[in-house]
Amino acid sequence: MSKPKGFEKPIGVRDYLPHVVSKLRYIERNVIDCMSRWGYRQIITPTLEYYDTVGVASSTSDSKLYKMLNNRGTTMVLRSDMTTPIARVMGSLLQKETLPVRLAYHANVFRSIEEEAGREAEFFQTGAELVGVDSPEGDAEVIALAIASLQAAGVQNFQISLGHVGFLSGLLEEALPEQADKQEALKERLLNRDFVGFREQLTSYQLSTAQLQELEGLLRLRGAQDICKQALEISSNPQAAAAIEHLCKVWEVLEAYGMSKYVMIDLTMIGNFSYYTGMVFEGYAAELGFPVCSGGRYDNLLAQFGRPLAATGFALKTNRILDGVQLPVPEQPKPVLIVYDESSRYEAFARAAELRLQGHMVVTEYEASIYHEAGAVRDGYGEVIYFTHDKPVRSE
Amino acid sequence: MSKPKGFEKPIGVRDYLPHVVSKLRYIERNVIDCMSRWGYRQIITPTLEYYDTVGVASSTSDSKLYKMLNNRGTTMVLRSDMTTPIARVMGSLLQKETLPVRLAYHANVFRSIEEEAGREAEFFQTGAELVGVDSPEGDAEVIALAIASLQAAGVQNFQISLGHVGFLSGLLEEALPEQADKQEALKERLLNRDFVGFREQLTSYQLSTAQLQELEGLLRLRGAQDICKQALEISSNPQAAAAIEHLCKVWEVLEAYGMSKYVMIDLTMIGNFSYYTGMVFEGYAAELGFPVCSGGRYDNLLAQFGRPLAATGFALKTNRILDGVQLPVPEQPKPVLIVYDESSRYEAFARAAELRLQGHMVVTEYEASIYHEAGAVRDGYGEVIYFTHDKPVRSE
Repeated sequence: MSKPKGFEKPIGVRDYLPHVVSKLRYIERNVIDCMSRWGYRQIITPTLEYYDTVGVASSTSDSKLYKMLNNRGTTMVLRSDMTTPIARVMGSLLQKETLPVRLAYHANVFRSIEEEAGREAEFFQTGAELVGVDSPEGDAEVIALAIASLQAAGVQNFQISLGHVGFLSGLLEEALPEQADKQEALKERLLNRDFVGFREQLTSYQLSTAQLQELEGLLRLRGAQDICKQALEISSNPQAAAAIEHLCKVWEVLEAYGMSKYVMIDLTMIGNFSYYTGMVFEGYAAELGFPVCSGGRYDNLLAQFGRPLAATGFALKTNRILDGVQLPVPEQPKPVLIVYDESSRYEAFARAAELRLQGHMVVTEYEASIYHEAGAVRDGYGEVIYFTHDKPVRSE
Repeated sequence: MSKPKGFEKPIGVRDYLPHVVSKLRYIERNVIDCMSRWGYRQIITPTLEYYDTVGVASSTSDSKLYKMLNNRGTTMVLRSDMTTPIARVMGSLLQKETLPVRLAYHANVFRSIEEEAGREAEFFQTGAELVGVDSPEGDAEVIALAIASLQAAGVQNFQISLGHVGFLSGLLEEALPEQADKQEALKERLLNRDFVGFREQLTSYQLSTAQLQELEGLLRLRGAQDICKQALEISSNPQAAAAIEHLCKVWEVLEAYGMSKYVMIDLTMIGNFSYYTGMVFEGYAAELGFPVCSGGRYDNLLAQFGRPLAATGFALKTNRILDGVQLPVPEQPKPVLIVYDESSRYEAFARAAELRLQGHMVVTEYEASIYHEAGAVRDGYGEVIYFTHDKPVRSE
């Protein structure tokens, strides 16, 4: 292994130059402001957490956690999401807060393994959590806020896929009772959107024709609300039926929000976090083949922090939006350049202060500086004002 | 060592609840906007850097760096400042950028040792760097921007102490030639503002009466521009004299900015970063006994990243301002609560959307939820609107 050179940054992390930061801040500001108008207030938690508490409770697999020892020999992690730290805060600082609690965040999170796959090891998420509401109304509020947040971020064309972990669990438990490994294998295929693999896997099991048809039928269960009716027809399993009834109610509330047009029910969706217990959803932008937002209900996570409370939340995958989506970010105006000499400092600085007060971006430059050569082309400036003796005050 | 419990966060790091985040964002937004108006554009760098590059070049002592091994066995650090990562970017991504370069940041930084002293191990800094200007004009611009930034943050009463590392170095090298350990011991006392210890240390050395008086006289060199004249009288050392002449020019430019009234020359100031090469300054708020801002010139740091360029910069100690200074942060308006039932969803959500569009913060609540009991006191809301059948639409 060679020593890193002076100009190298670690693999998997990045520098954001000013024109990218403008775009990132545009997303952050607009989304956080949107969440605030829905009553979700910002929280900031530390970058470092204890492995034994937040690290273990997070849905990030152990191999993807960034671990380190502190100087007392305790294992620490760089946070891999914000949902788990917020669950910890609900069990400590916010223990006495009136319910329901609505929280928002914009934060960087870390994944260790990505470094080797050429993916990002540190990236931003902008999200919200609704704690203490266990109803379909709560689920719909969070989905509606996710839609409003995507719009606030500037994502123009997107669709939300909505599912429920209970539907698939019910179906699989009925078809393959107490065969957790087979159930997991099938879920893994769906999680990876590998429908061909799902069919192959199914065929390799000893299932009755009816069961095979029922499980294969799952792949067709994607569409608007009428999918729920079809779903009830292919299975009479009580857990699956309860999941469908719940989704129907969520859909009804989304209609009242005027937002069902953005939503497609997709019963192959199972959510990629192990802590999800109910409805799950993902948002897809037209330009991209991977989700730009994901969320769901996690009613058991907070119990691990001493507060058995229902909760729903979501996060925008902010970096994917930043890199992959065409956003209506207003162009930064070019700064005004004021060139001055020794005798005109007072005048020049006063003019700069005046323009800044009006909201202009102003750079001042000493005429005798090495950068100011006679006739030098100064691009990047909207206007150049000279406060010098040998040249009259003028604009270009 | 006992295992951390579920609700524990690591020692030395903190959770920022919404009312504190509002204050922190107020500082961040106003200061970054101010820097932007001065032509300083935001940059974001990764949390993790290589120890061998940024870690070693940073002025943070090795024992205070947060170190960890990545999964290839390379030592990484959590950044301890932003100046060194920015120097790295100047040597890589911004290598071809037209000079001078003006950059701004708001970032969290890490110090490992603080954890045990009960101090913060992770905290925010909001700062700016001017790269490629080696003149007193550049120094004055950065000091003036620091003053404008403190004002933008809402700090009302503060003073800037301005010094120069060259003055003290010249004096000490003359009095104690090639006795680096004794020079260091004296600098250490000044850095800790331990003037009694400085005198004791001086007395323990074998110095001539004249030298003793010269070095003791240093402690009186604090005040407005006339201090420069006094300083030139107590020492004729060329390095010290050059430093003083430079400070005189900086002062002149600060006068043109109308900002010299905030500045005091203090020749006992030596700056707490090992990479400082010229003028150094600190800002003190009236309420606090420790600096809320510090900066200086560092003309040798960038050479370590392949770009031998002059540079000046500063950072606000954002957490100290947050915790210790009374700021004019506008109070958050209380949200509107809209209570609805099944039959009034459309109407209620439409009203909520309308109010949000007007900029109001609106929380919606299903009447049948467990939190809505008849006659329940709902504090924390500015107004309650009912969209329900059994109650008329009304406000409280």
